[in-house]
Amino acid sequence: MSKITIGHKNPDTDTVCSPIAYSWFLNKKLNLKTTPKIAGEPNKETQFVLKKFGVPTPEVINKFTEGDEIILLDTNNPEELIEGVESTKIIEIVDHHKLVGGITTNEPIKVTLKPLACTATIAWQIMKNAGVNDLPKEIAGIMLCAILSDTLKFTSPTTTDEDKKAVEELNAINNEDLDKLSSEMFTAKSDLTGMSTKDILTVDSKIFPLGGKKVRISVLETTNPQNALNMKADLLAEIIKMKAEDKSDYFFFFVIDILNSEATLIVTDDSHKKIAEDAFGGKFNEDFLKLPGVVSRKKQIVPPLESAIK
Amino acid sequence: MSKITIGHKNPDTDTVCSPIAYSWFLNKKLNLKTTPKIAGEPNKETQFVLKKFGVPTPEVINKFTEGDEIILLDTNNPEELIEGVESTKIIEIVDHHKLVGGITTNEPIKVTLKPLACTATIAWQIMKNAGVNDLPKEIAGIMLCAILSDTLKFTSPTTTDEDKKAVEELNAINNEDLDKLSSEMFTAKSDLTGMSTKDILTVDSKIFPLGGKKVRISVLETTNPQNALNMKADLLAEIIKMKAEDKSDYFFFFVIDILNSEATLIVTDDSHKKIAEDAFGGKFNEDFLKLPGVVSRKKQIVPPLESAIK
Repeated sequence: MSKITIGHKNPDTDTVCSPIAYSWFLNKKLNLKTTPKIAGEPNKETQFVLKKFGVPTPEVINKFTEGDEIILLDTNNPEELIEGVESTKIIEIVDHHKLVGGITTNEPIKVTLKPLACTATIAWQIMKNAGVNDLPKEIAGIMLCAILSDTLKFTSPTTTDEDKKAVEELNAINNEDLDKLSSEMFTAKSDLTGMSTKDILTVDSKIFPLGGKKVRISVLETTNPQNALNMKADLLAEIIKMKAEDKSDYFFFFVIDILNSEATLIVTDDSHKKIAEDAFGGKFNEDFLKLPGVVSRKKQIVPPLESAIK
Repeated sequence: MSKITIGHKNPDTDTVCSPIAYSWFLNKKLNLKTTPKIAGEPNKETQFVLKKFGVPTPEVINKFTEGDEIILLDTNNPEELIEGVESTKIIEIVDHHKLVGGITTNEPIKVTLKPLACTATIAWQIMKNAGVNDLPKEIAGIMLCAILSDTLKFTSPTTTDEDKKAVEELNAINNEDLDKLSSEMFTAKSDLTGMSTKDILTVDSKIFPLGGKKVRISVLETTNPQNALNMKADLLAEIIKMKAEDKSDYFFFFVIDILNSEATLIVTDDSHKKIAEDAFGGKFNEDFLKLPGVVSRKKQIVPPLESAIK
């Protein structure tokens, strides 16, 4: 039995770094004995961030132990959690996603949800309100990177003034060149070396119930979309396979060009094309649909797809 | 369509005053146009508080209009809300109850839950963190009263240091004599004039699913328990009637002597007596079970009853 800070499966930089930072806060300021863990291997961007700031990679776990006390960061969705969560005690939640409603508790707990781009921003606000003024350089650094990652360096429409302010406050400690740091992070994220097609399709992948259908939506954020687009044939074959394994109705894969703020949608067949054209307008060129300005799954991809499927 | 701050049905002082205070904050500081409303007639304690600080009683409503935008205070439980909530848009929740899990949203919203005695404490913390330093006297007054009410002037085991600190900070504005103010509130609360037995049994009444059974637990907080205890025969008759109407399995009614921190449990039959003796120890004297020190349904009544029923 232990106290664990942890995020969602298919971990991204926010869901790895926020639990590390929040664990520091809980231990140092509230005298809890928590340990950050991660629900899957960190991606290359996250590896770069942890290495840059000299922060050890948390232990990867794939199930909880009965009686574990859990502090959830960056999710309030039981379906995004590793196995065994029903036998744990959830003692706090910090998140920036919509309220999914699947988690109940036996007693009152602390829950902090805000509609910001990044959980690390909320975590920082909680720390600041608690009077924290001695954030270690490495913790400030990884929180800062989480926000740069989730906002695509402030270009994503999910970005709020509160996220920008948090970056400013956090970077007062390290004084990083944010353009350079973002560029290094996004280059690391764009390195597909050693990744299988399945790895590429699951870097950031979620299944949504949309209009009564089960819909997988994967995104790949990259500074070099051509690397992935060149693999089209292999990706399409893998999508067909994964869709059958999932028993999902649709699978949409978006390669997001971070530098040029443009998504390219890849689909396997005409039924997907029809929905996508209804959702986004435009016409497919072979199996590609270019979507200028589209970078956010939450704000720009899920809502139109949901309307089109309905 | 309008923006409404509102709490739960069977309103108590917190669930009336917190929406009034939070509406002031949202309108004044965030330029929202919200109106506080209440989900039932205010009780005598609440009437006293509003009158004392010259705050108008909010409109009582019993259903929402489609498209209303709702800010929920003091509940996150759809079953405690008035009709029509499913056709509204919930845009924020501030609460101190356990996470019930019944509410989902289509997009990220602000949710602030904390395990404190009173929602008004959380509302005040949010305002303070937002830089509020010009709280009107009457708003400070009613928030302060909500906390005194929910903590039974700091005697309830639900009381936290954060609740006490909030009272201190809020009372810096009015400089009320807290002993006198609490005494006046609790006297108002204890006035049963004009109340039917059903009114008395529903001043503060909730139905809980406990151990697979449907259990109604009503409490009456009073400085004069004898007033209610003298009505035993009428109360028992009404309990039997309400239990049949509810189709509930059990009905426990606790008269809580606020001044002496003692509850007296009244039940209708031996099956209830058996469970109560298992839960709390002690023996019934006729239909009364005295429970010294018991004042909190949340902390001292529901957990032992749940264990006994299981």
